Amino acid sequence: MLYIKKDRNYQLILFKKRIQRISKASLWAVQEKKRMKVVIVGGGAAGISTASNIRRNDDDAEIIVITMEKHIAYSPCAIPYVLSGDVEHFEDIVMHQPEDYLEKNIKVITNSEVFEIKSNENKLKYRIKNQHIGIEKEISYDYLVIATGATSFIPPISGTKLEGVFKIRTLEDGMIIKDWAGENRVAVVVGAGLIGLETAYGLKKMGLEVTVTEMLPQLIPRSLDSDMARIIQEYIENEGIKIILGHPIEEITGEKRVEKAIIGDQVIDTDMVIMATGIRPQIKLAEIAGCKIGRWAILVNEKMQTSIPNIYAVGDCVEVYDAITKQNTQSPLGTTAVRQGKIAAKNIVGIKAEFKAVLNAMVSKIGAMEFGAVGSSKASAMHNGIEVISGKSRALTKARYYPGAKRIDVKIISTLKGRIIGCQIVAEERVAERLDTMSLVIAQEVTCSELAEMEFSYAPPLSMVIDPIILAAENACEKLNKLGK
Amino acid sequence: MLYIKKDRNYQLILFKKRIQRISKASLWAVQEKKRMKVVIVGGGAAGISTASNIRRNDDDAEIIVITMEKHIAYSPCAIPYVLSGDVEHFEDIVMHQPEDYLEKNIKVITNSEVFEIKSNENKLKYRIKNQHIGIEKEISYDYLVIATGATSFIPPISGTKLEGVFKIRTLEDGMIIKDWAGENRVAVVVGAGLIGLETAYGLKKMGLEVTVTEMLPQLIPRSLDSDMARIIQEYIENEGIKIILGHPIEEITGEKRVEKAIIGDQVIDTDMVIMATGIRPQIKLAEIAGCKIGRWAILVNEKMQTSIPNIYAVGDCVEVYDAITKQNTQSPLGTTAVRQGKIAAKNIVGIKAEFKAVLNAMVSKIGAMEFGAVGSSKASAMHNGIEVISGKSRALTKARYYPGAKRIDVKIISTLKGRIIGCQIVAEERVAERLDTMSLVIAQEVTCSELAEMEFSYAPPLSMVIDPIILAAENACEKLNKLGK
Repeated sequence: MLYIKKDRNYQLILFKKRIQRISKASLWAVQEKKRMKVVIVGGGAAGISTASNIRRNDDDAEIIVITMEKHIAYSPCAIPYVLSGDVEHFEDIVMHQPEDYLEKNIKVITNSEVFEIKSNENKLKYRIKNQHIGIEKEISYDYLVIATGATSFIPPISGTKLEGVFKIRTLEDGMIIKDWAGENRVAVVVGAGLIGLETAYGLKKMGLEVTVTEMLPQLIPRSLDSDMARIIQEYIENEGIKIILGHPIEEITGEKRVEKAIIGDQVIDTDMVIMATGIRPQIKLAEIAGCKIGRWAILVNEKMQTSIPNIYAVGDCVEVYDAITKQNTQSPLGTTAVRQGKIAAKNIVGIKAEFKAVLNAMVSKIGAMEFGAVGSSKASAMHNGIEVISGKSRALTKARYYPGAKRIDVKIISTLKGRIIGCQIVAEERVAERLDTMSLVIAQEVTCSELAEMEFSYAPPLSMVIDPIILAAENACEKLNKLGK
Repeated sequence: MLYIKKDRNYQLILFKKRIQRISKASLWAVQEKKRMKVVIVGGGAAGISTASNIRRNDDDAEIIVITMEKHIAYSPCAIPYVLSGDVEHFEDIVMHQPEDYLEKNIKVITNSEVFEIKSNENKLKYRIKNQHIGIEKEISYDYLVIATGATSFIPPISGTKLEGVFKIRTLEDGMIIKDWAGENRVAVVVGAGLIGLETAYGLKKMGLEVTVTEMLPQLIPRSLDSDMARIIQEYIENEGIKIILGHPIEEITGEKRVEKAIIGDQVIDTDMVIMATGIRPQIKLAEIAGCKIGRWAILVNEKMQTSIPNIYAVGDCVEVYDAITKQNTQSPLGTTAVRQGKIAAKNIVGIKAEFKAVLNAMVSKIGAMEFGAVGSSKASAMHNGIEVISGKSRALTKARYYPGAKRIDVKIISTLKGRIIGCQIVAEERVAERLDTMSLVIAQEVTCSELAEMEFSYAPPLSMVIDPIILAAENACEKLNKLGK
């Protein structure tokens, strides 16, 4: 009797396991009954997200991640915060060691470069870095995921090879910069995008004298309009960072190590130059494999599939579709990488999933100042031929009488039909989540007048009884009314 | 020549003024050319919002606000924060004096009680409080707005008239409580809703020994499920406040002043009792006028119009439509009052506007703990016969490695079809704006799987790369998948 009971339990367990597998993995996988082999090239957010999400949906698949770097699964966005001392050690921002993935039965091969893909044979070759070129290995795959990311773009000016000139992209870059900065006094950061400004602030906090130079006439030109960028500029200048706008860097000079940076008619004596001058997608491997390349990067469909059906691509190396401009663009964001990894993983295991058009929601914190943007700026909309108006509010983050209330500036971009297509927010607190609300507003095609009547939560220590977003939406409505829209 | 130019300018100014008036006021108002007279009874958020919004849309209207209170335009939600000392003075939370409204040409009559409304004659009578009953005044109106709010509900137990037993509703209540608490040692707060808990915390910060008692078996039963309420309970108990759940207060005893509060089998020696036992809409005037009353309060349509076409009603004294239960309910929130005032004002001046169904988004901060809810709780959904599942996440408010990251708990309530109908969040930061995102999610009928793929902004000091909301949505999706939905 006991035996039978045991046996029944055992049958039950078997049955449950089978059910789990059916629900977790795809019908396809169940029918095939073959152990799927997925090779992922790249161990950044996109590659690791793909690997983890495949495992989450498929207990059996063989998963191999190959990366050129020594570290995986670290947060490159956090490098400036290690410089600033907000995060103590570079080790802190490495969230997993390659060994950790063995638990999930994911094999991670570090320091290794994939140099050949034979997509007609479903095979690739890699070699271990810093070893004799002879040591090459070949492995096969059922699915290949290209998550090769991007590299720093260094403009073609003279002096970029001098000692003391750095790119800032990988953990190693961060470590080298921190060491160098620790022994020096003056820094020039070229490029006033997010990473440039965050790095400049980090170096300032380390005690250096810092100048940021930007070719365009404003900070963060990719995401913000000039009026909003000026608020951030004022803050950063008050923090003691010098800003030069509207001039490209022309030359870096020095004997062996950097001595001067020449920007327009200004010559700055400096101990180091950080080139935060943008990134270029790493598309070489995709080209070798024969994948179609778009205007900016690897072309993928909404499943994250390249032009070769069993090769997927995710992260900074692919092009995405912009929800506002309806054109392909880049979305070099950690969140995009993670989301794309999830979508690619699902499709690989046979679960339907689509990567939607992006709004490129971005947010940053520099010192006490939070700022961010989502969707299109007014400038970018106009550049793309979209007629827009903007609604603005300058309000507070708490009730007017509540101690510690901070100024908050909100700008909403609306089409002449009242559809909201962009938002920018600057304040010393509570920016990120408001941007997320606005992401949803834009994605759901909410209009200014609908937003102006939306229900917001309220408590004196946390908000104003009329949210600054509502005030901006009302301002936009008034402008539209005046236009007779 | 100069004369003609001047004349043309003058004509232009006249023309512009006329255009402004047409766009600002309603067509109706322009056609009638009569100066509209609006009387608003009540000087709280709803009444004042109505007055200001009428003025915003109509330069001419005669606007009179009559209130029983000495103060207008103060923030009753802020009273507990004056007790706690976060806000220094009661004066701070009074945002405007009656005189301030003269600037906007809004007449405010304080300390005056409206006691008769002759709706067939469009007239009302009021008397000035604390004066001989003989001094009565009668005024006429074109539109009447009832914004009489609500009064504290005191349960019918013995001892509530003793000295040291207080309701907490108006600024005067707050002042009296603060004075009494300043001279005493022990307090009992009856009712563990928002105002009860906030007041308890304020008294604790004043140095009193505080017990909160609640008839129902959990804190904040109106908005939160018991699992989420327990997190807040733990925090509040750690702050040294005693909590008694599941027992109604039975009696308050004492000679002239309160001595004991009897709750179940517990007898608490106390110096004061605060009755935070809910509110009742003030509907007497509406009844006198002959307006239809619903199950809870004054019935209004989506224009905030009562059953009598030229009488509107706004704020705590009206019933609203619940977006989830599809039944009438109460929404005694400052934000609701302000939004209703705006809608009523627009309709009065002839601009089309509708007050939408409510989600009752609420948020509070007690000490370091923020918490809130929007839409339906799981318990309330089940109570209303809606089959639901919940998705939960326990995550962090910043990147895992970032110093100062706080725990955050998110609970999402979804129908079996995957439509999100509620959300509760508890954390030490960044709760309010996340709730606003969830308000929009619910209002826009976003599903769990859509939310799980939504774009969120990310920076290490501000968020996790996968937002806690996404994690909760993924958890909900998994549960729905297991159910085969």
